[in-house]
Amino acid sequence: MIQVKAFLFDVFGTIVDWRTTLTQELSSFATLTSTRISNQTLLNKDWHSFTQKWRNGYNLYINSSNSGKAQFLTVDSLNEQILEKLITEFDLVHLWSDEELENLVNLWHNLDPYKDTIPGITRLGDKYINAILSNANVKLLVDLKRNADLNCFDYMFSAEIWKCYLPNPKIYLDCCKMLNLRPEQVAIVSHIKSDLKNAKKLGLKTVLVQREDYYDDEDKNKETNDYEEEINGFGGQANHEFDLTINDFEELAKSMAC
Amino acid sequence: MIQVKAFLFDVFGTIVDWRTTLTQELSSFATLTSTRISNQTLLNKDWHSFTQKWRNGYNLYINSSNSGKAQFLTVDSLNEQILEKLITEFDLVHLWSDEELENLVNLWHNLDPYKDTIPGITRLGDKYINAILSNANVKLLVDLKRNADLNCFDYMFSAEIWKCYLPNPKIYLDCCKMLNLRPEQVAIVSHIKSDLKNAKKLGLKTVLVQREDYYDDEDKNKETNDYEEEINGFGGQANHEFDLTINDFEELAKSMAC
Repeated sequence: MIQVKAFLFDVFGTIVDWRTTLTQELSSFATLTSTRISNQTLLNKDWHSFTQKWRNGYNLYINSSNSGKAQFLTVDSLNEQILEKLITEFDLVHLWSDEELENLVNLWHNLDPYKDTIPGITRLGDKYINAILSNANVKLLVDLKRNADLNCFDYMFSAEIWKCYLPNPKIYLDCCKMLNLRPEQVAIVSHIKSDLKNAKKLGLKTVLVQREDYYDDEDKNKETNDYEEEINGFGGQANHEFDLTINDFEELAKSMAC
Repeated sequence: MIQVKAFLFDVFGTIVDWRTTLTQELSSFATLTSTRISNQTLLNKDWHSFTQKWRNGYNLYINSSNSGKAQFLTVDSLNEQILEKLITEFDLVHLWSDEELENLVNLWHNLDPYKDTIPGITRLGDKYINAILSNANVKLLVDLKRNADLNCFDYMFSAEIWKCYLPNPKIYLDCCKMLNLRPEQVAIVSHIKSDLKNAKKLGLKTVLVQREDYYDDEDKNKETNDYEEEINGFGGQANHEFDLTINDFEELAKSMAC
């Protein structure tokens, strides 16, 4: 057990499975619209790769903004811009209407939670405050909560409020302050090691959740000073750096005696 | 029915009954601690008046801050300061310990919702986004939500984020923007007419909820240019100024076809 009063949860890849949902939805929509073009290779596109590149584009922009090279954009705007580039890259220009493209961007608002998310965090809520902390804009989080029935969270902190992105230290420290807690009374929960390491530097506790669909790419896309330590992946020696390492949120609830 | 996509709800006196809860809790606590002092008049204190003065102190400070005469404080800090003054005014100095005073401040974190709040807003949630919009700080809202099971709200906007108080126009307009809506697509729901009138000036829709425990004092404590129009109270000619006037949230749900 770790001595904290509240948990702040990362969203994409930590509480919701963006990769599976997005890949399936993109693939289904491609099938549905495949008769529009003569080139039937649409069905053979690698939607897994498309989805991953969409997320990579997001990570690269966040890094670029955090190093002062790009302005703040909502994650919705950002996802829209990246989608436009991917459509060119995957040779899909003119296939989908503007409305359909908007619907594709909104796929990020409707993602399936991992099966342990709601039961685990609901249990945890008996004794602890649970909040979301995400770069996602407010509207995206509101829709995500409504679509996935994420009532297990007491609050949702969106980086949109600060007009800058995580892991900006101000965001972490302001969240602690607004919960009337000291940093060491708050744990960050994420599947991304570099995010946890940044929070740790500020005095917050850290919980690594080892998702099966984790890709090293997510950490590789993050620019941190000490990225080199992370390449061993899960189960490696790096994990002792975190206050707690778990496989899912049922395990987190159990280890916190909930 | 009004044509909106989202409702933003005021909290104290609109969704939770602060006056009844506070008065009862203060009275109970006074009874519990009455043997500590020889002066048995403690039991005869007017806890209704104490509670009202506590709220009035809040309203006066908000007005003072909004006109540039006082700095931003969290509502918790403000409630603590006002309580200290009231304790002197009601001749209760040294009766309660610091911990007990903190518990009294935290009474504001644990208020009963009106009986129509949860069923009405839950019904409304089938078709509309429902969010809290309050001067209360984040921790206060988080506790209020946990204690009263206010899962019917999709989001909680706290003025603490902006470090200024409602009715600052920036807060209303930022909330609309963050919900990806135009002002006319959003309705403010409150029992306080002056708040609604301020929101209306910005283009938002307005819903007046007529709570039985409403006191004119609440509007009288607000400094608005056109306060004079409000003195007629409920049912008067002023009510046509609002897009919708309801008696409770079951009625709101019904009038929105939920």
